[in-house]
Amino acid sequence: AADFQRLLAGYAELLVKVGVNLQPGGKLLVNAPLEAAELARLVARSAYRAGALNVVVRYVDEQLARLKMDAAPDAAIEYVPAWLPDEALRMIEDGYSFLTLDGSDPDLMAGADPERLAKTATLRAAVMRPVSQKMMGFEAAWCIGAISIPSWAIKVYPELAPEEAVSALWRDIFKVTRADTPDPVAAWQAHIVRLGKVRDFLNTQHFASLHFADPHGETDLTVGLADGHLWAGVEDHTKAGVKIVPNMPTDEVFTAPHRDRVDGVAVASKPLLVRGETVEGIRVRFEGGKVVEASARSGEATFLKLLDTDEGARHIGEVALVAASAPVAQTGRLFYNTLFDENAASHIALGRAYPFTFSQDPAQSGGNDSLIHEDWMIGTPSMNVDGVNPDGSRVTLMRGGEWAIEGLTT
Amino acid sequence: AADFQRLLAGYAELLVKVGVNLQPGGKLLVNAPLEAAELARLVARSAYRAGALNVVVRYVDEQLARLKMDAAPDAAIEYVPAWLPDEALRMIEDGYSFLTLDGSDPDLMAGADPERLAKTATLRAAVMRPVSQKMMGFEAAWCIGAISIPSWAIKVYPELAPEEAVSALWRDIFKVTRADTPDPVAAWQAHIVRLGKVRDFLNTQHFASLHFADPHGETDLTVGLADGHLWAGVEDHTKAGVKIVPNMPTDEVFTAPHRDRVDGVAVASKPLLVRGETVEGIRVRFEGGKVVEASARSGEATFLKLLDTDEGARHIGEVALVAASAPVAQTGRLFYNTLFDENAASHIALGRAYPFTFSQDPAQSGGNDSLIHEDWMIGTPSMNVDGVNPDGSRVTLMRGGEWAIEGLTT
Ligand SMILES: [Zn+2]
Ligand SMILES: [Zn+2]
Ligand SMILES: [Zn+2]
Ligand SMILES: [Zn+2]
Repeated sequence: AADFQRLLAGYAELLVKVGVNLQPGGKLLVNAPLEAAELARLVARSAYRAGALNVVVRYVDEQLARLKMDAAPDAAIEYVPAWLPDEALRMIEDGYSFLTLDGSDPDLMAGADPERLAKTATLRAAVMRPVSQKMMGFEAAWCIGAISIPSWAIKVYPELAPEEAVSALWRDIFKVTRADTPDPVAAWQAHIVRLGKVRDFLNTQHFASLHFADPHGETDLTVGLADGHLWAGVEDHTKAGVKIVPNMPTDEVFTAPHRDRVDGVAVASKPLLVRGETVEGIRVRFEGGKVVEASARSGEATFLKLLDTDEGARHIGEVALVAASAPVAQTGRLFYNTLFDENAASHIALGRAYPFTFSQDPAQSGGNDSLIHEDWMIGTPSMNVDGVNPDGSRVTLMRGGEWAIEGLTT
Repeated sequence: AADFQRLLAGYAELLVKVGVNLQPGGKLLVNAPLEAAELARLVARSAYRAGALNVVVRYVDEQLARLKMDAAPDAAIEYVPAWLPDEALRMIEDGYSFLTLDGSDPDLMAGADPERLAKTATLRAAVMRPVSQKMMGFEAAWCIGAISIPSWAIKVYPELAPEEAVSALWRDIFKVTRADTPDPVAAWQAHIVRLGKVRDFLNTQHFASLHFADPHGETDLTVGLADGHLWAGVEDHTKAGVKIVPNMPTDEVFTAPHRDRVDGVAVASKPLLVRGETVEGIRVRFEGGKVVEASARSGEATFLKLLDTDEGARHIGEVALVAASAPVAQTGRLFYNTLFDENAASHIALGRAYPFTFSQDPAQSGGNDSLIHEDWMIGTPSMNVDGVNPDGSRVTLMRGGEWAIEGLTT
């Protein structure tokens, strides 16, 4: 127990010092599930000790969202107040940093009406758009870190009793975030340098496209890259120049595809959680950048609804490379959580691109836009990835799921 | 357990249907301590079943306030964001009702720096003033109801184990709110009629002052009433015309004193909780409406700081009559909570008056104003209260702590 307390306090420190990299005099908003009080208090303590002016914790009771889905009248599903984004916008202006403690029940919305789910999610995304645009543009420092809560833990460790499942998931979180190393902050600095080298190499190449081919699977996909695309990963800089690590864990490097230059077939290597429902066995065919065929073994209706959110939901806005040996993959577990699973496998994302993955105007460069951004895992331990130059020549990037860039050890 | 669930669900229904009297298509904000998830969900369910458009629950972790008091730099104590009231103001405009589930640790701030406590409370009250003014003017429907949580329950029932203390406090809550009667909603209608008769009688009298005299105590206090004062109690009407019960329980009728016409000595009949500290043995002398002497057996420094908040903090803005036999008093417990204790005894309130206790402009009528409003119990089972007419003649209101108005059975 004392050991757990020590690890948890160190993890809180990591989220504050490396994640949002809170500066003296900084202000912090923490979004957290109800079960996160212990961690949230450690985060607040760590922030105040670092000289924070204010820490606001917004506790979220996700059961209320389910209850609304089931019990509220139809008019309630269509109601999203216009003032919803205002406070967050004021906080961004006011220099707040944003830390999200991510832990939720993967089955929260199982069996709920997909029409109602899609309607609420779409309306909400539209109203909150000014906030997500500013976040994606790094007008504020932000970080998403994981928290082990019972409803999530028992999904990841169904063979364990709830309390043991929570402990097991905490062990995974401490492991993949390096919180269990003697000096977590130093371990992150090393990781940032290591993965930064890959990102920087890719930025020297200016590939026309990436080619994913899995000799043991069906995926054979060419992802054309946006004109003047930029590779990003591990670390970002806010507009004010603060270095942050927006995702913990993070083992991806990623960039912007060209919205009209994606062709071929991609099959999901992991289930995808869409609006609380687990979608399994996704297979998609792209033509000219657009999803022209889509199927799923389970949850297909929800997946098809997602694709129909808007025009941009059938195009992709992110392509990311992750080694098959990344720490999350090493746990051997499926986490039913994007923050974790996307760092276990190479992936693409349906929906909007990140503005910071373009050197020029995103719309002019072939960047995609949408209300959604859904990461979707296609990487496998047998995946080969090449970078394709404008003249058709190729550079080996990954072989058998692992980095294989000549002259670069990672 | 099944019985408790039934009572809790009935209590939730009471808060929604009688407390804020939520209308079909209504919207509800619930402020609740972290421990209130079960009740908050029942409230949400009840609200959605009544046709609510939206229920937002804001969970408050009061430990964060204590942690800030202890660990934050001085600058943090002086920081209150200007945007703090904005969301509540937008919600008031947007027709939201406000339900506060009141449960907190009476010792939360024990031993904290009184300077820092006072500074934060004063700055916060100033920034939140536009909200409290609208609430006091009933521009929104609102209700405060109690919730049993461990830190509060063990203070009320120190002789019990925490879990039993929580159950015992729940029994008290269900009792004083009539949630344990066969038809709680009907029981409240009867209570509203009964206490309403007293309020209506007092409104026909137009007393110049009230005279409190306790033959077994030191209190001998003349409370001059504001010109054109109005008696209020049990039920109020929002500006939109919805009948609400702002406090559950409520057994008081109250009106506005004249800020410059209070004279004599008042001693507290119960401890007062000020900013998380328990102040005991308060004795105050008024002259021309102003507190000119003040002492307390414990917590005196905190009490004196409260009086120094602003000019109006040394004058009173409310005088309230409560029968010594009221349900809360019958429990025989001290609750260290204003919502409960103020409904166990007659009281006065330091600080601002309620605008709805005046028939004309409050400032012109002798109404008091301040950033604070602190109820302060002076009623005892031996207290006599007379209404004094402008010509000096007297009307018996209470004898031995009980209502004794001729011709009125209560
Ligand atoms: Zn990604
Ligand atoms: Zn993504
Ligand atoms: Zn009162
Ligand atoms: Zn009061």
